[in-house]
Parts: sequence; structure tokens; C-alpha cells
Amino acid sequence: DDYKDIPRGTAIFKDFVIWGYPHIGRIFLLETGLKEQFESPFWVEEKVDGYNTRIFKYGDNYYALSRGGFICPFTTDRLPDLIDLRILDENPDLVICAEVAGPENPYIEESPPYVKEDVKLFVFDFMRKNDQKFLSQEEKMELIERYNLPHVEVLGKFTTSEEDIRKIKEILKRFNEEGREGVVFKEDSERNKRAKYITSYANLMDIKTNTKNMLQLPPEYYTNRILRLVLFMYEEGLERTEHLYEELGRAFIDGIFKAIEQFEKEHKVYKTFTCKFRKKENAIALLELLSKTSKHIQVKERRLEKEGDYWRLEFDKVFLNMTGLLGHLLSGGIVYD
Amino acid sequence: DDYKDIPRGTAIFKDFVIWGYPHIGRIFLLETGLKEQFESPFWVEEKVDGYNTRIFKYGDNYYALSRGGFICPFTTDRLPDLIDLRILDENPDLVICAEVAGPENPYIEESPPYVKEDVKLFVFDFMRKNDQKFLSQEEKMELIERYNLPHVEVLGKFTTSEEDIRKIKEILKRFNEEGREGVVFKEDSERNKRAKYITSYANLMDIKTNTKNMLQLPPEYYTNRILRLVLFMYEEGLERTEHLYEELGRAFIDGIFKAIEQFEKEHKVYKTFTCKFRKKENAIALLELLSKTSKHIQVKERRLEKEGDYWRLEFDKVFLNMTGLLGHLLSGGIVYD
Repeated sequence: DDYKDIPRGTAIFKDFVIWGYPHIGRIFLLETGLKEQFESPFWVEEKVDGYNTRIFKYGDNYYALSRGGFICPFTTDRLPDLIDLRILDENPDLVICAEVAGPENPYIEESPPYVKEDVKLFVFDFMRKNDQKFLSQEEKMELIERYNLPHVEVLGKFTTSEEDIRKIKEILKRFNEEGREGVVFKEDSERNKRAKYITSYANLMDIKTNTKNMLQLPPEYYTNRILRLVLFMYEEGLERTEHLYEELGRAFIDGIFKAIEQFEKEHKVYKTFTCKFRKKENAIALLELLSKTSKHIQVKERRLEKEGDYWRLEFDKVFLNMTGLLGHLLSGGIVYD
Repeated sequence: DDYKDIPRGTAIFKDFVIWGYPHIGRIFLLETGLKEQFESPFWVEEKVDGYNTRIFKYGDNYYALSRGGFICPFTTDRLPDLIDLRILDENPDLVICAEVAGPENPYIEESPPYVKEDVKLFVFDFMRKNDQKFLSQEEKMELIERYNLPHVEVLGKFTTSEEDIRKIKEILKRFNEEGREGVVFKEDSERNKRAKYITSYANLMDIKTNTKNMLQLPPEYYTNRILRLVLFMYEEGLERTEHLYEELGRAFIDGIFKAIEQFEKEHKVYKTFTCKFRKKENAIALLELLSKTSKHIQVKERRLEKEGDYWRLEFDKVFLNMTGLLGHLLSGGIVYD
């Protein structure tokens, strides 16, 4: 995690440093939160439900860093499919900050509704090597346009006026219905203050998709998401949000039910991931990286085969603690708590 | 907690040791669990929703220990109202293990539906000083009858036959409807194996009544209770348990909603407890004990007044972390998670 003033994910190379992408704080109440946090107009951008990456050029090659600061073999492998990198040839000190999202990624189960296959990349910031600051919104949009880069949806510049708050709430209502994760607010000022807000849809999906992994989650994982949901209901009024009672119950229960059914059939609790690579060695490197980084998850290759111009990788993440606990409970075991 | 082979709550006196009351393991599936855990017929007793105490005589006085091994000033003070202690005069080496439950206790909010005021005591085991073993069911019932002691309901001796499992499920169905916590199974054998099973009602109540305190609960608190609920639904069939979806959501959401409303009105999140004492100094000792034992809870006396033959104590437990977090969130604060 962060170490003193050095954000998690900071990567040190021979000639330069790439700073970690900073955490963005979350507001739980939209109206009160925006009014409290922002002094000047701010940009509203979609927060895409994927994983964070930073892309840079080193020598003649392009690399993609994971949030944690490792070279990501999957993203690095697929860069030519995801983004036109002439921008880095002409601006070798730039670092592209982007979200990679879609159903075929090796990290997370969730994906935005409008990415129907494989993965897509969405630029949302630029940094420079050795520099912790972001480029301004103007510089960013100028680069995105000049190089025709894929980017997150920018919904406009807003203030905390009644009128604008109403518009932002409408955007979030629509995002919620469309199954999108939320938005990031970026103040259009020197201090470039930022905050994010997540839809109820995404809070519930987080609870549901992570149940197989629930025994490894930090203690505040559930309490935080439930608090977000309740504060949303509080802000919007109970009458309009009553359906969330049952949806919250379902989010918890359905996920565990599926884990039980899977265990009954296959004697383990796991999720299958699939993604494709240009080079076979990158697929192998990814499996090694995943195996190394979690001791609670066993990574099992299912297949790695040539498929057209790509290598198709399919693998399981076996959740060892959940597998063990369900095995114990379903055979009538006793738990001391 | 437990230290090597010494159970939590073990108390050492000059002339003797009183062993801690051992943890009783929990089964999550009734039928499979009973069949797996029990080799011989077992007694089924009600598990009363209160707090555990061990009562003994020391010199000329009677004392009640808390689960954790402290002398409990409340229980000790009220012993003459709760139980006839001639049994300890005639058997000074006995230790009475009992649950104290009711709406006017200083520890927990929950109470069994049939205790309408104050507290009542329910004997469920006997130990001897210096001895970790329990007396047998026969010896226990004999003592309870001879001294006419209040005790937990004993529902009978059962086996794991189809017929008996059906009867036990019926008991638990009734307990669930009546808002009772669950049952303890005690094998009628030398090894005296034990296990407990908790109703869905009690699992949901645990979630609901503990939300004000949710930030201090151990990480497995919620995951455990949700797992219990889902395994109950799994064992009983979804069709018959569908209502639990919404009830689980309500358990989480309603508790937090109440905390928010309380914070909006009074700028703190707290619960009020009331109980009565025979002696004023015991009320003061209780407040001191409660203050000492939790750093996350502030104990605030509301009143301590003579009321008939008793001293009426009313006090608040202020949940500092929840108060702080809600204060931060409701004023639009940012959280980094």
C-alpha cells in the first residue's frame, strides 16, 4: 500500500520514476459531498469498471503497469490492439493513465455493459515521467483529440448549483439503470481536487461478485458498501429506494448459493477467466504473476491454445478458504466463533 | 481469548480455580451436522439469548463471574432476586452455569420474548471448583429439582433418526416464530459432546441490533451470519425461505437508518441501557467495569436514583467510531478505501 508519501504502485526504472496512480476519495452523499469538497467548477467523467493501468515507453518498447506497480503481461501484450501509441513516440515522457475493461480480462469479473467482448481501453489522465502531477483537463483533451485516443466519457463541466446537482443526479440515475459504475469529479483548478461516486448498481454488484472471495476481503469491505447504499437511500428518500432491501439481500444470498451449488457439483469454489494474447509467453507470465500475488487463490490453467492470430488462455481462480469452509460446513462440521 | 488449553474466563482465587465456560461449536446444517457430530442420543436444551455467568460461593459470599472471568457487579448484586442459593451453602464446591436474560440487563440489547421486564436467570450446567468437567444431565436435573432452580427449557433426549430430526426441526421452526435464539445439543455420554444451532430469527436480529457497533465487529461477524442464513435456506429449500432475501436487506439497512436518524437529531450514535441494583456501589462498579473494557465505547451515566427498594441505573453506550464516521459522511466528507 502507500508508504509515507509514496503512493502504492510507484515504479522505479534506471532512468525515471513512474508515480503510482493516487487513490481518489469517495463521497457517500452526492449533494452535500460535492458542496463540501469543491470550490470551483469540476469536470464529471465516467468511472469505468475495469482495472487501472499506466502506459509508458521505455527504450523502443511500450509497457503497461498494473495499479500495484508490476508490469502487466496481459495489458502490455495487447497494447497494439487497444490504443495507437504514436503519442508516446512523439512524447516519450508521457504516461497514459487508463482503465482497461471488458468481459475478457484476467482480473475482475465485472465489466461495463457496452463492452460486449474482449477488452477496451479508456484513457482518463496523463502524467509525465518523474512527475506526480496530472496534465490539465485541457491538455488531456487536446492530446486525446490530436491522437484520436479511446477515452472515458466526459459528461461536462459542472458546478454545485441546484441546476447542476440535478443534472448530475440524472446522469447517475441513468448510469445506475444502464449498469455503469459511477463518476469521477475533477476540479478544474490548480489543486485539481478529485472525488468519486459509485452507483447503487455497482455497490450491489461488488457484493454479489465477491462472495466467493468473501473470506479474504478486508473487514470494511461489506460495511462500506452497505453504508454507501443506505446513504444513497437516505439522500434519495426511502419511498423511491425500497426495492434495495430485497436487492441487498439477494446480492449476499445469491452469490453464496451459487458457491454452494458449485461446491456440491465440483467440490471446489472457483471462477473461470478467459482472455487472449498476441504472444504465448505473455500468457504464461500472467499465470505466474497471478499465482505469486495471492496465497489464498490457486490459479489453474484450463487451456492455452492458438486461436486465429491470438493465443486463447482460459484459467480458474480457486478460492481456497471458501472451498475449505464450505467443504467443512456441508459435511456437517462444527465452527467455533 | 483462550490461551493454550486454558479457556477464556478462567478465574484463579486463593483456594481454587473456576474454569472458563468452554466455547460450544456451531453446526450450520441441522441434519448433516447432527449426524456427523453425535454418536449417542443427545439432550436438546433451549439456548437463551442473554449473557453467560458462573456463580459460586467464596467465604460467606456469593459471586457471579462474567464470561470473560471478571466479577460481574450487576449479576452479583442481583443474585438473591434471581436464584435460591442454598444449593451453594450445602454444596460449596459447586459452580452454577447460567444465562441471565431480559430487557433490563447492562450488556446486550436482545432478550427472549418471554422475559417481559428486568432479568431472569436460567441454569444450564454445573461445574465443580478446580474441575473443568460438567456434571451429567442426570445430576444436573436432580439438583435443579431438589433446589427448585430456574433453568433453561429441556426439550428432551433425541437421536439422529428421521423421526427425531423432524421433531427437532419443528422445535426450531417454533422457536424461530417465537423469536427465540436456538438450541444446544448435549450428548448423553462420557465425552459429553456439544454443539449449538441458531434460528434465522436470531441471526437476523444479531445483524440488526449490532449495526451501531458494526465498525468494531470482527471481520467474520457478518460473513458468518450470512453463511448461516444461506445454509438454512439451502437446507430448507428456497421456496420456503424466499422472504429472507428482504429480511436480510432490512436487517442491515434499518439498523443503519436508525443510526443516521439518531445522529441527525443528537449528533451521536448510542444505545440506552437500564437496569436496577440492590446496592448503589454495585451500579457504580458496573459503570467503571464497562468503561474500562471497551475503548471504542464511551459509557455515560444518565441517572442513578433510588426507586423503591432498588437503585435504578440508566446509561448510554456511545459508539465512537460510528459517531465519527457518520459525522464525517453526513457533512460530505471523503473516504479513501
